[in-house]
Amino acid sequence: MEWKSIVPLAVFIPFISTAQNKIQERPNIVVFLVDDMGWQDTSLPFWTERTQWNNLYETPNMERLANQGMMFTQAYGCSVSSPSRVSLLTGTNAARHRVTNWTLEKNKSNDDKSDVIQPPDWNINGICQTYGIAHTYQVTSLAQILKDNGYHTIHCGKAHFGAKDTPGENPYHLGFEVNIAGHAGGGLASYSGAENFGNRTDGQKSPLQAVPDLDKYWGQDIFVTEALTLEAKKALDHAQKLDQPFFLYMAHYAIHIPIQKDMRFYQKYRDKGMTEIESAYASLIEGMDKSLGDLMDYLEINGIADNTIILFMSDNGGLAATSRSSVLHTQNSPLNSGKGSAYEGGIREPMIVSWPAKVKKQSKNDEYIIIEDFFPTILEMANVKKYNPIQPVDGKSFVPLLTGEGNPSKGRKLYWNFPNVWGPSGPGIGATCSVRDGDWKLIYYYDSGKKELFNIAEDIGEVNDCSDKRTDIVKRLSKDLGQYLRRVDAQRPTFKNTGHPTLWPDEV
Amino acid sequence: MEWKSIVPLAVFIPFISTAQNKIQERPNIVVFLVDDMGWQDTSLPFWTERTQWNNLYETPNMERLANQGMMFTQAYGCSVSSPSRVSLLTGTNAARHRVTNWTLEKNKSNDDKSDVIQPPDWNINGICQTYGIAHTYQVTSLAQILKDNGYHTIHCGKAHFGAKDTPGENPYHLGFEVNIAGHAGGGLASYSGAENFGNRTDGQKSPLQAVPDLDKYWGQDIFVTEALTLEAKKALDHAQKLDQPFFLYMAHYAIHIPIQKDMRFYQKYRDKGMTEIESAYASLIEGMDKSLGDLMDYLEINGIADNTIILFMSDNGGLAATSRSSVLHTQNSPLNSGKGSAYEGGIREPMIVSWPAKVKKQSKNDEYIIIEDFFPTILEMANVKKYNPIQPVDGKSFVPLLTGEGNPSKGRKLYWNFPNVWGPSGPGIGATCSVRDGDWKLIYYYDSGKKELFNIAEDIGEVNDCSDKRTDIVKRLSKDLGQYLRRVDAQRPTFKNTGHPTLWPDEV
Repeated sequence: MEWKSIVPLAVFIPFISTAQNKIQERPNIVVFLVDDMGWQDTSLPFWTERTQWNNLYETPNMERLANQGMMFTQAYGCSVSSPSRVSLLTGTNAARHRVTNWTLEKNKSNDDKSDVIQPPDWNINGICQTYGIAHTYQVTSLAQILKDNGYHTIHCGKAHFGAKDTPGENPYHLGFEVNIAGHAGGGLASYSGAENFGNRTDGQKSPLQAVPDLDKYWGQDIFVTEALTLEAKKALDHAQKLDQPFFLYMAHYAIHIPIQKDMRFYQKYRDKGMTEIESAYASLIEGMDKSLGDLMDYLEINGIADNTIILFMSDNGGLAATSRSSVLHTQNSPLNSGKGSAYEGGIREPMIVSWPAKVKKQSKNDEYIIIEDFFPTILEMANVKKYNPIQPVDGKSFVPLLTGEGNPSKGRKLYWNFPNVWGPSGPGIGATCSVRDGDWKLIYYYDSGKKELFNIAEDIGEVNDCSDKRTDIVKRLSKDLGQYLRRVDAQRPTFKNTGHPTLWPDEV
Repeated sequence: MEWKSIVPLAVFIPFISTAQNKIQERPNIVVFLVDDMGWQDTSLPFWTERTQWNNLYETPNMERLANQGMMFTQAYGCSVSSPSRVSLLTGTNAARHRVTNWTLEKNKSNDDKSDVIQPPDWNINGICQTYGIAHTYQVTSLAQILKDNGYHTIHCGKAHFGAKDTPGENPYHLGFEVNIAGHAGGGLASYSGAENFGNRTDGQKSPLQAVPDLDKYWGQDIFVTEALTLEAKKALDHAQKLDQPFFLYMAHYAIHIPIQKDMRFYQKYRDKGMTEIESAYASLIEGMDKSLGDLMDYLEINGIADNTIILFMSDNGGLAATSRSSVLHTQNSPLNSGKGSAYEGGIREPMIVSWPAKVKKQSKNDEYIIIEDFFPTILEMANVKKYNPIQPVDGKSFVPLLTGEGNPSKGRKLYWNFPNVWGPSGPGIGATCSVRDGDWKLIYYYDSGKKELFNIAEDIGEVNDCSDKRTDIVKRLSKDLGQYLRRVDAQRPTFKNTGHPTLWPDEV
């Protein structure tokens, strides 16, 4: 007689049945986060009109995803990487978490030099989950809360949450149970397996941005985007054995510089008459899109697509200030400028959510949301009702937008604070803070004291500054922005010549 | 002007200073756990007399550790691996956590067949930190609590906390931030790097006990004990950069079977006239001892020895029922029997604690303690005062024994429950439960109903069963043991012929 038959069945069944109900209440969740991808870097039109960019780039799987879910046409990130990623993982606005610029090395700021202003003492070491670590923001991460609530948590790709040699450098310290290739680096030394993803094998020290963990692909003709996808699928194979729902944070290194040629797609773009570098850029996009499709195929083949939510997002605007062959600052048109800018080109992102059980297919939403909203949204999706993170949560769940049951964006204002010096110059690039209120957007420049006011609904390209005409709105929004920044204990730069802090927007 | 000079110093200093104070209150902690090491597998005498084994084996670094700390002569584990490791990581007695036998594959019991009894539905999948996983005990692990309280948590070596393809298989799921070579397997396919630690490279599936993660040493003439030590030191190099205290759980695969020759030490033992297999066994011991010494050297060289606690322990008694060339069941003499037995040979462990700040050098303690005591002890050492694990904590901190400020063992009883069928036969090996109360130890055999009573102080070899003479004590301890087991909801086997449960010790 087998031993299992002796155990009274009544002992087992209620237990397993409860567990299965709980699992069914908890969908799998995939965050598919692209790096430095602009709002127009796709064949899927997020604007009211189809643009030249939509015609150039080919992203059939983004179209497929949009076809089975909801597009968001006004989804915002921060203008650079670390602040966005930190906000996503913490629910906290960058003005509050103070990881306002990009991180890399311990106790080392990546601010560029400015003759006029000195950036504040921002959290140059990023986030961490432990106390007493200098220059970090202590948090309870989204992954940690999901893990604590029964999710199997997988990190794949770019992390960029904390500086090297600090606890936040490693996703394992932030509640992830699997980490594939995530570390302190926010860029990549090479996309190419043939180049060992930038890792040195001659005994010399590898560059800080060499991609870790993918040794098995070294020397092979494979792009990092593909290698990460293969590894993510392996992690999902294993996840399915664990009797837990999974959270896959699939954060591609693509389409960050260096703009290398993914030869699976490159020639097609050359044949369209595009330059070498623009063709290479397009090949990075299409390689990322193939990864999306491969993961969607995987979910379908494994019969878990119906119970899996996919959230597609980028961390900041497309790079338009350097490294591209065409006219600078125009690659995100109709948006003005790109990565690093307070203009829409720097912060508006392509965003799609597929949630078969709840979201209407082929739907589109024009309400604005911001990157920290992912935190409460995902926890609501996961049916995690009680959580008590160390940090305040500024984000608002956009589940009501997805289900059509409410509009949390109504009457809401969005805020940005970048008291730093990014480096390249260009439209809207500088130490700024901004507020979006309905159709209006106010931008304040800490160094010059200049203010700009745009009606985004009428002027998506932010070329008609209305600050002179609508001083009433400038005054109202300046006051609101100043109050907000002080309330969340935001930071501002200091004037180099006087050593005094720059003024808040409502002090000018 | 450097930007740091602009920031008011007053903002910084109190913060960093507080952090440093906190760090100083929190020592680094190393658990050095050996696998299947018997009480006599060392040149360091844990008995009142020096034995032949103490003369055969050479463990200079255990002597060195004892020289700087406290030896425990009556430290207990369970009689097999998983229950001990689970108790250490949870503070819970095996009778309660029900991971009573060793784990390996999901939903698969490793109980051997018996004609008489059927083991209960024990937690064959081990522990995990999430709910709804069948046949597991849900816990908050020691590593998790330490991590949540600011420790950098490193797992190196054998895990054996949960079955393959369940959440507990992987230390990353249990609060460890680094995992080197830990998985579901409790043994090892090979010690040898030249043999890839048992991993197949011919496309065939590797055995379940192939050691993971150490690919870089494949094909090299290196023992796994050495490879783990090198990797642990690298992890400590990095830990020192993180401004956190560290918890290193250094759990060697040694000295588990297969008994392979570590050629760095083997010939010396052959020259003493020992057989091939006994010399190989001795070489495994000395390889483990070298690792201990290397880590002690590391701490000293790096100036952190004074603030680092080392706890040396084994998980169960030395294997004496199979695989050795000398007379079976004698290899732990003066203790009777070995691994798998309720006798002292199966459960008494070599234990040493070095804590420079608090523990007297060259000291010895004869009070008894048990493996689940490590949990509250380590948390007390780490100055973690409030914690709220899911599981009840049965262990008692032995910090007062270390500091001489109290005796938590006084008047305390220790309990074991093994309602399983291990496999090999031998003295004290079977489905048993036991209680130790002062000098007395009662063992109850579930299948036969037999009871044995030993006075451990007078009869460490457990050869004089006093159950006939001291029926008063048998009755008292039977009652106590039965009550305890029912109180913690312990499990017992079932009789195969009737399907009825075996009797509790106080029902016979």
